[in-house]
Amino acid sequence: MQRTDMLEKTRALIDAARAAGATIVHAPITFAEGFGELSDHPYGILKGVVDSTAFVKGSWGAEIVDAVAPHEPFTNAVAPQPGDIVVEGKRGLDAFATTNLDFILRARGITTIALGGFLTNCCVESTMRTGYEKGYQVVTLSDCVAATSAEEHDNAIRFDYPMFSTPMSAEEFTGSLAGERAPV
Amino acid sequence: MQRTDMLEKTRALIDAARAAGATIVHAPITFAEGFGELSDHPYGILKGVVDSTAFVKGSWGAEIVDAVAPHEPFTNAVAPQPGDIVVEGKRGLDAFATTNLDFILRARGITTIALGGFLTNCCVESTMRTGYEKGYQVVTLSDCVAATSAEEHDNAIRFDYPMFSTPMSAEEFTGSLAGERAPV
Amino acid sequence: MQRTDMLEKTRALIDAARAAGATIVHAPITFAEGFGELSDHPYGILKGVVDSTAFVKGSWGAEIVDAVAPHEPFTNAVAPQPGDIVVEGKRGLDAFATTNLDFILRARGITTIALGGFLTNCCVESTMRTGYEKGYQVVTLSDCVAATSAEEHDNAIRFDYPMFSTPMSAEEFTGSLAGERAPV
Amino acid sequence: MQRTDMLEKTRALIDAARAAGATIVHAPITFAEGFGELSDHPYGILKGVVDSTAFVKGSWGAEIVDAVAPHEPFTNAVAPQPGDIVVEGKRGLDAFATTNLDFILRARGITTIALGGFLTNCCVESTMRTGYEKGYQVVTLSDCVAATSAEEHDNAIRFDYPMFSTPMSAEEFTGSLAGERAPV
Repeated sequence: MQRTDMLEKTRALIDAARAAGATIVHAPITFAEGFGELSDHPYGILKGVVDSTAFVKGSWGAEIVDAVAPHEPFTNAVAPQPGDIVVEGKRGLDAFATTNLDFILRARGITTIALGGFLTNCCVESTMRTGYEKGYQVVTLSDCVAATSAEEHDNAIRFDYPMFSTPMSAEEFTGSLAGERAPV
Repeated sequence: MQRTDMLEKTRALIDAARAAGATIVHAPITFAEGFGELSDHPYGILKGVVDSTAFVKGSWGAEIVDAVAPHEPFTNAVAPQPGDIVVEGKRGLDAFATTNLDFILRARGITTIALGGFLTNCCVESTMRTGYEKGYQVVTLSDCVAATSAEEHDNAIRFDYPMFSTPMSAEEFTGSLAGERAPV
Repeated sequence: MQRTDMLEKTRALIDAARAAGATIVHAPITFAEGFGELSDHPYGILKGVVDSTAFVKGSWGAEIVDAVAPHEPFTNAVAPQPGDIVVEGKRGLDAFATTNLDFILRARGITTIALGGFLTNCCVESTMRTGYEKGYQVVTLSDCVAATSAEEHDNAIRFDYPMFSTPMSAEEFTGSLAGERAPV
Repeated sequence: MQRTDMLEKTRALIDAARAAGATIVHAPITFAEGFGELSDHPYGILKGVVDSTAFVKGSWGAEIVDAVAPHEPFTNAVAPQPGDIVVEGKRGLDAFATTNLDFILRARGITTIALGGFLTNCCVESTMRTGYEKGYQVVTLSDCVAATSAEEHDNAIRFDYPMFSTPMSAEEFTGSLAGERAPV
């Protein structure tokens, strides 16, 4: 996060994209207290989520980060800008798998999506892979993502992102919004 | 609704099912004010939803009916009983299509689902068809559903429900919970 | 089938649609001999399929009907016209649920689909409902479908089709291809 | 492939799994000649598929490799062992996305899947991620997969596989079949 300054870059990119008429979609992962939506015997990364009681609705862990969406702290009453969309239902890693994301994008005629967030090789990568599989033009914003190690981050961007997306920097993407170059 | 007394039957059935250890899942359809999740040019039944500004979050139309879930009226702060699950993300008619319903059922090892609600031949039928397609043992509760006409209700139950479910009355289902007979 | 002359109407409509540049997609339901793809304890309409050993690959029951697709009889080697697409994988009733239909339509930029086939209130209706849910402009061809009774056919078209599609006759649809009127 | 001897290990593992009563599922990627199922303007890895005319039905590239499934060469008439299942419809990378794989697994009551194949960080990884998201107990067979470089292979197994699966060697998995240890 420090190396790429991803939060500040994401904030600036969102502002530019909003100004250019893009739809901003937030896809937070949240759980009811007690994690009743999950198996009693989770494994893999969702076990880590349960063990650390992360992302519980109404708690700090479920908040959208201040840099990205202004909101009332600790209320979970997210207040993105008018016109923004908060996708509901995310309980796994892939932002498409258990949500109405695809439904909303299709209803609005959106065919290009640009992805940022955490982790480079977890939620962002799963969402990228499924978005590609669904036929979207997927852009990955290589300095608006971060991982738990620089190595994981670098490997995902180097090896996996080009198979399922058009990777570019925030600067390149913002430039493309202004018509300087096509994003894909 | 009057003919079958479906609300009262549903309330009683939910109590019995809870007592027997079943998971109660609510799947309300809701929209942000302005219906930004939908196309600007909806058709079919979602056009009717938009034209009548039905199911808007925070309004009466998005509330879960009193008979089924105790809650603070007009706050949209649904408060089902502890252990109940409120599925998020329903913007269409099929309760599986844009939600985490399948994810939650699978995580909890649930393989039999019993369906009630509105309309017999719209949301309930779409959910029944998809539930069947996904391999669930689907029970349809023939007197816990209702439609906009008796004819539509009767036709759906007579012709379509047996293809994709095991239809039964609330009394039959409740009896099966007590071990009197197997539900499917 | 006799009342609507649906096979001949379908054949003529397909020819007209091909000539107008539409993509013709066949979505046959087939099973390996022994129905290993299904549960040992099917229920509902798939139980009827297994009990009657319908739709077995390589048998007459899995053939695409002569009126619609020229092919070598009894070989299951379907030979639709060049450019036609035969969707693979259909083991249930909904033509989207277990196939690459959505993938292909999206890859080709197709957003309007016109449905015909059997049964009015089974496969066609399930496909219509899911197509609507996925945001397609769905046209149902009311005289290019048929059911096991006139009553089921009529009820589905009268009550369910208008909720999830724009129903029209083959003649109306063919006219719209020629620019006489918009299909949706 | 040479380092892990993955083909021979896969062949032996399949024999042992068949003997233990497991269901063997083949999920080949294939395309009609001309790639009509894809966009005229593919990008990412599917562009590579089109540019190299890989995986065309009836050609060598669509054959299942000899080591895994005995078949008549160059006929594309795959003849796996009786009881094996060949999943149809795979046109993308994720073996679940456009196929009946989930339908078949659910119908047969299968909840644990063990994955091998190509590429470690492409098809196998996408399938692993979606299988995890769908609630399967996913085992990844770390020496029954291979990639286009040792680095990509190693990174995927080191960083991504543990988040979405229980990685193990062919030997460990085969041992677990014999009851020596539980696979997950």
